[in-house]
Amino acid sequence: MPPNRPTPIVSVDVVLLTLAQGKLQAALHRRGRQPFQGCLALPGGYVHPEEDATAEDTARRVLREKTGVQPRYLEQLGTFAGAARDPRGWSAAISHVALMPHEALRQAGDEVFHFYDVDQLPELAFDHAEQIRAAVERVRNKASYSTLPCWLLPERFTLTQLQRTYEQIFGETVSRGTFRSRLGIKVGDMNPGEAADQADILIATDQFQGGSQRPARLFRVNRLSLFKRASW
Amino acid sequence: MPPNRPTPIVSVDVVLLTLAQGKLQAALHRRGRQPFQGCLALPGGYVHPEEDATAEDTARRVLREKTGVQPRYLEQLGTFAGAARDPRGWSAAISHVALMPHEALRQAGDEVFHFYDVDQLPELAFDHAEQIRAAVERVRNKASYSTLPCWLLPERFTLTQLQRTYEQIFGETVSRGTFRSRLGIKVGDMNPGEAADQADILIATDQFQGGSQRPARLFRVNRLSLFKRASW
Repeated sequence: MPPNRPTPIVSVDVVLLTLAQGKLQAALHRRGRQPFQGCLALPGGYVHPEEDATAEDTARRVLREKTGVQPRYLEQLGTFAGAARDPRGWSAAISHVALMPHEALRQAGDEVFHFYDVDQLPELAFDHAEQIRAAVERVRNKASYSTLPCWLLPERFTLTQLQRTYEQIFGETVSRGTFRSRLGIKVGDMNPGEAADQADILIATDQFQGGSQRPARLFRVNRLSLFKRASW
Repeated sequence: MPPNRPTPIVSVDVVLLTLAQGKLQAALHRRGRQPFQGCLALPGGYVHPEEDATAEDTARRVLREKTGVQPRYLEQLGTFAGAARDPRGWSAAISHVALMPHEALRQAGDEVFHFYDVDQLPELAFDHAEQIRAAVERVRNKASYSTLPCWLLPERFTLTQLQRTYEQIFGETVSRGTFRSRLGIKVGDMNPGEAADQADILIATDQFQGGSQRPARLFRVNRLSLFKRASW
């Protein structure tokens, strides 16, 4: 057993990111208790060893209990740990990043979340601003070589919606041709169940969106996929 | 304060990687106490809240106390946490990855470390094999777009030594031209203090290695640098 000394506090925080008004935004809530009572903060909470098999379980339980939302995409970001970050003592916050469509977050109710542009954050509790910066760097970096941005969209989306999502994450526009070639998207007609891309990741559904003139096919994504990197 | 419930155990583990016999190897030690007494394991230990300002401090203190080595390159890898990984209870191991030249590790003494090819690991304590797999994936991935491999070399090294280091990490050979173009290394004569690469990272020293026929200049690196990624 650990020797008899002060024990670190272990908690889990979740950087919940979404796209709203064309910007990457963080979903924050106002803390109801000390420390930092009344401050904007990330959703988070203590590990409950009897309930949570893993730290990811803690993240999902905290989100469910405090906000009612369940993200489809959740990954561990890193641990923010030390003597100075929490006035209650040495603490380790196992930080996670979650991506959700804005609509799904709004269903939690208007009083649950406050949304802030990740590039214009207000003052936040603890080291939560630093956690958000690290999460945004991770998401922008991973978006450059993976299908990560799909998780900011509803379960079914058009390729144009997906292109806008990438553009909003990077804050720059891209031509349709460049976008499609970067993702390895094939051109031409597709059948339901067929993949739009060479890596078999974006799957065509039998549904369409838009008017009868030029309806756009809806796609879905099954799993996070990394594009092939340039090797030597 | 946290409610009165079992408190998670917080420790730090270090995946110490080096190159030996042309392979990426992990430096392991044999555990002197339960649990997993006598098993091969990563160096690690409990956080000491009175001594360690951060988790990285814990990592450096544990390495100093248990092995006597101090890595120049150390980064947090991720946290391996949950109810099942340690028989003593719910635990969070904040895992780090460190890179060191083999010579510097051997100075710790032959009895301190046992070296194993990361692709042929023996049975290890806890989830340490999983931590090593994650560390190797991180290092191979980051080596593909950064100067990370420099930290596996002594403080001064030739460009040919650096090329061999990249090759050993990836387990494949590469032509001198491809290697130099990937790193943006300029050709031609250099003066001491001048950078060998476009990003000003590999700095020429006034020292050379090898015979009087074609001595090779020694370089040093100041900081971790990421190569420019292909954007859109």
